[in-house]
Amino acid sequence: MAVYTDITDQELEGFLADYDLGAPLAFKGIAEGVENSNFLLETEKGRYILTVYERRARPEDLPYFLNLLGWLADRGYPSARPVPDQAGRTLKTLRGKPAAIVGFMPGLSVRKPSPAHCREAGEGLAWLHLAGEGYEGRRANDLGQPHWAPLFSKHRQAAEDLKPGLAATIDKDLAEMALAWPRSLPSGTIHADYFPDNVFFRTDGKFAATIDFYFACDDAYAYDVAVTLNAWCFEADGSFNVTAAQGLIAGYERRRPLSPAERDALPMLARGAAMRFFLTRLADWNATPAGALVRPKDPLEYERKLAVHREGLSLFGGRA
Amino acid sequence: MAVYTDITDQELEGFLADYDLGAPLAFKGIAEGVENSNFLLETEKGRYILTVYERRARPEDLPYFLNLLGWLADRGYPSARPVPDQAGRTLKTLRGKPAAIVGFMPGLSVRKPSPAHCREAGEGLAWLHLAGEGYEGRRANDLGQPHWAPLFSKHRQAAEDLKPGLAATIDKDLAEMALAWPRSLPSGTIHADYFPDNVFFRTDGKFAATIDFYFACDDAYAYDVAVTLNAWCFEADGSFNVTAAQGLIAGYERRRPLSPAERDALPMLARGAAMRFFLTRLADWNATPAGALVRPKDPLEYERKLAVHREGLSLFGGRA
Repeated sequence: MAVYTDITDQELEGFLADYDLGAPLAFKGIAEGVENSNFLLETEKGRYILTVYERRARPEDLPYFLNLLGWLADRGYPSARPVPDQAGRTLKTLRGKPAAIVGFMPGLSVRKPSPAHCREAGEGLAWLHLAGEGYEGRRANDLGQPHWAPLFSKHRQAAEDLKPGLAATIDKDLAEMALAWPRSLPSGTIHADYFPDNVFFRTDGKFAATIDFYFACDDAYAYDVAVTLNAWCFEADGSFNVTAAQGLIAGYERRRPLSPAERDALPMLARGAAMRFFLTRLADWNATPAGALVRPKDPLEYERKLAVHREGLSLFGGRA
Repeated sequence: MAVYTDITDQELEGFLADYDLGAPLAFKGIAEGVENSNFLLETEKGRYILTVYERRARPEDLPYFLNLLGWLADRGYPSARPVPDQAGRTLKTLRGKPAAIVGFMPGLSVRKPSPAHCREAGEGLAWLHLAGEGYEGRRANDLGQPHWAPLFSKHRQAAEDLKPGLAATIDKDLAEMALAWPRSLPSGTIHADYFPDNVFFRTDGKFAATIDFYFACDDAYAYDVAVTLNAWCFEADGSFNVTAAQGLIAGYERRRPLSPAERDALPMLARGAAMRFFLTRLADWNATPAGALVRPKDPLEYERKLAVHREGLSLFGGRA
């Protein structure tokens, strides 16, 4: 929720001169996306989002993300289409930083998803997995299971400071996951950050669009389902809403049925997905100076989800 | 440039239930306005700005501001019109804070105004002064000349810390202004914060709209011109651009000629206007803890403008 880069009217005019979008009519920084600066841009041709890529986005990854957006839009998936400049380029430079213009997607995200929202979101995720098939871009999941133990080794003390005894618990989790992690599930292009703020709904509650593909990568489809279960199906009190989870999976299976192996793997995948977000939040927490006005997200939210999964999820009639 | 209050989809739905605006289609926090939280709201009926009033806005002042916006819009001035709910109320409550919906104004603000922009902005300001005539709302300027010495007395040490010797210089300025401050100029409703980020232009460079009336009050029209000269006519290197200033005044006089007394008063009014922004920036600076991620605006920018005005402005062929 921030705009890190300030764009002047003159910089905008110079930037738009490369495009065939007509003159700008309105331009406003918007509080959307945590990692990049986003602007609502209205021109004589329509409405767009201008994104300036900040610290976390690696420039060499940006063609992968923009080409994926183009691929998905070509296949009718409701995600923003990158807008090429007059020379056909979608990845540009603005104020010395990488930048791109994509189409504006209408819709609203929900803060507290109902089971009906979870069902719709699940279907939207399966649609994304199917629409992404055949995309030739490749990006390894640099926040996947092999990366967790090295990441944790840098932040063990921060975990211990948050909750005494936690470091040893996480060590044990990581060792168990390294042994039991499912490695031969159907894989392809996943979103990897399919949280409620990245999914838009129509007024009637139907799935409308997916945004913010800047963690997309190659990994197991069921891992994306597991990330989504964690993001959508926990109550504020930390309890897991099995009704919402079953709705999410039923919605997913309207488009792409899970195999028995994927179903069996879900509890471990959900535990791992909780570990991934616990670890990156822990790292962000640890990197933020005390007294800063902007507090990072609480790592303990995901530590609690991890604890729930450590006990074993029971999604499909008793298996865990 | 901030969104202080986070509105959930459920809160938005409950809020909109009082209005006749149809269902929401898009809702985004925008980085516009320093003091309040602003959201771009698109519904089936059109596009709007939803403002949640934060810390600085005094709830008892809000009807004055909203009624002024309605008055100006009724007279054809391009400012946002407040949208009444089904019971005719424009001032509402959202998440326990005052809130209002106003119309969306297209247009772009400029960062480095050209003399042509200054001319257009000047005309827009005079139009505002004329359109406000007859508005019955009254609000004393609580940041006007009588308030500067008491405000400075709380922050003398901060001024001295910024620049040794500055406190005594400001004391002398304040004493001179108390004696020489013009008190019988034509007065009425002024904007009092007519900075480039509060003025929108069309693509062809013509004045389009004025926003952010939350400092509006009763004071001398020429004082509003002086605030505007300071905000629009200084170069980044601290020099005063007389060409831009003459353009601004010429534009103003297309709609409302200044009287000889107003012209004579402008140098002192501009000095006072520089004092007003120096003092509030000094107070904000002093109130911000060291190490905070959000830095307030630099008070020394206005200290330098004050120093320029201390030497005497020469806007009209040698008078100062």
